Amino acid sequence: MSEHAFFTLLDLIGTFAFAISGALAAHQKKMDLFGVVTLAYVTACGGGIIRDVCIGALPPAGLSDWRYLALSIIAASLVIGTGRLVEKLSQPVLLFDAAGLSFFAVFGAHKALMFSQSIVAAIILGVISAVGGGALRDLLLNRTPVILQKEIYASAALVAAAFQTMGEILGWSLLWLPWAAIVLCFTIRYLSLHYHWNLPRFLRDND
Amino acid sequence: MSEHAFFTLLDLIGTFAFAISGALAAHQKKMDLFGVVTLAYVTACGGGIIRDVCIGALPPAGLSDWRYLALSIIAASLVIGTGRLVEKLSQPVLLFDAAGLSFFAVFGAHKALMFSQSIVAAIILGVISAVGGGALRDLLLNRTPVILQKEIYASAALVAAAFQTMGEILGWSLLWLPWAAIVLCFTIRYLSLHYHWNLPRFLRDND
Amino acid sequence: MSEHAFFTLLDLIGTFAFAISGALAAHQKKMDLFGVVTLAYVTACGGGIIRDVCIGALPPAGLSDWRYLALSIIAASLVIGTGRLVEKLSQPVLLFDAAGLSFFAVFGAHKALMFSQSIVAAIILGVISAVGGGALRDLLLNRTPVILQKEIYASAALVAAAFQTMGEILGWSLLWLPWAAIVLCFTIRYLSLHYHWNLPRFLRDND
Repeated sequence: MSEHAFFTLLDLIGTFAFAISGALAAHQKKMDLFGVVTLAYVTACGGGIIRDVCIGALPPAGLSDWRYLALSIIAASLVIGTGRLVEKLSQPVLLFDAAGLSFFAVFGAHKALMFSQSIVAAIILGVISAVGGGALRDLLLNRTPVILQKEIYASAALVAAAFQTMGEILGWSLLWLPWAAIVLCFTIRYLSLHYHWNLPRFLRDND
Repeated sequence: MSEHAFFTLLDLIGTFAFAISGALAAHQKKMDLFGVVTLAYVTACGGGIIRDVCIGALPPAGLSDWRYLALSIIAASLVIGTGRLVEKLSQPVLLFDAAGLSFFAVFGAHKALMFSQSIVAAIILGVISAVGGGALRDLLLNRTPVILQKEIYASAALVAAAFQTMGEILGWSLLWLPWAAIVLCFTIRYLSLHYHWNLPRFLRDND
Repeated sequence: MSEHAFFTLLDLIGTFAFAISGALAAHQKKMDLFGVVTLAYVTACGGGIIRDVCIGALPPAGLSDWRYLALSIIAASLVIGTGRLVEKLSQPVLLFDAAGLSFFAVFGAHKALMFSQSIVAAIILGVISAVGGGALRDLLLNRTPVILQKEIYASAALVAAAFQTMGEILGWSLLWLPWAAIVLCFTIRYLSLHYHWNLPRFLRDND
């Protein structure tokens, strides 16, 4: 598999994971058919579209490549068809969201580095790719945006995007680098959910 | 009238309809002069600016062509000057909003198809052109976004954008195709408001 | 100092002022370390990124130039380190926000005019540069967006952006034009806060 095909595969896996997460969130809010598909699509493609607009990769892949829309429709159909089953899994939205976060942080950083040749832009756009779709999902659903959640979220994407970007700059092998970065992000996110890890806060009383 | 001038006319009609809808919504919230003009402009031009950014038509027409800003100022002045009159019409925001939705779905799909040559991008960007401005209006006004409204809304834009895109691909005459698509969208939206048509929902109790 | 370096300096000053304002707002909401840095960065760079995307200056300076991220981190550290001190100043968020508003309205209009050669686009994008970051900050913090605040806000940016744009078109000296526009915007904003100046409203009872 070529390097390009490999990274496209990472992107499609992340897309599917986020589409499931968006469809589940919409389904739990009892939205209609179009709403479930829309939330799946916005969650799956929102972050990548913002990234592509910022690096000038136009039209954004999420808009012009039919596979992203198709994956969103498949994810929405799966969630609608097996709603009761999926909801019995513990916190499935959070798990699929963590998977999407990890794949997108790594793919987003890689694509932004290719286009912009800027380390800072690659890291920031990796994070935006990873958290943008979820933030749009929460805006549309009137929920507290994920990036303000108590547990570590965007920080996990930041670690993975920075690891991937620095690894590529240092010439580390793309055979293992992306997977290591993905596992790193997913592990940090999962552990922070499980153990309620938080970053330090700076309360006025503690100053 | 050239094809280009004809489609620009469609865009300007949609702009005016959405500007009226945005100005009415701002006026009902008792916003100040700048707020009414801003809401008119954001509602009228927000969706088109997002579309133009995604297809690389920069700077977006809504920013660089003075007619869009002028129409927004005229619409705001009309609403402020005739406030009592306009408010006595039944649900005028909804009607002007439905007209803007129809014109923008068709014009947006046409322009996106010209620039991106992608059927999927044309349909999605037709819908985004049509619902983007209203979604920004509702975000700024802290209202439930239109695309989550109970009645059929974005689905009507989707039907029109898909109809226009497929018609252009199949080479149907631009003399009647856009008008048919516009009437189709407006009719679906109007009937869904009148008869409270909804898309199917998938409640847990029904699974 | 070259003209380019001078305008970059204006941009960096505005960035720092908005970063302080965003970090203070996040700190008051007791957000964690990442949240404070993120809010500082989004407030400081959000408006400029939207502007750069609209004029095709890609990748946006706020993403590819490390100084914008660095200033956001410094501002966040300052706010966290001296939290009690800063909070004792009266309404510091509002003052830093007014400074950022003034510098960005002027720099944004200048940069947009250079890239788009359109007077209308320069004025609108000057305003968007100035109010965009604050609007994103408020969206993320679930506060009423600044541009809907009672006192004059975006109107002050509009006056400065229009003054700067018209001055450049008329060939006025860049030695004093930007400073005059900045002082103009800051004064209008400060006085409107101090004396609770408002634009006229159009209540139904008054029609």
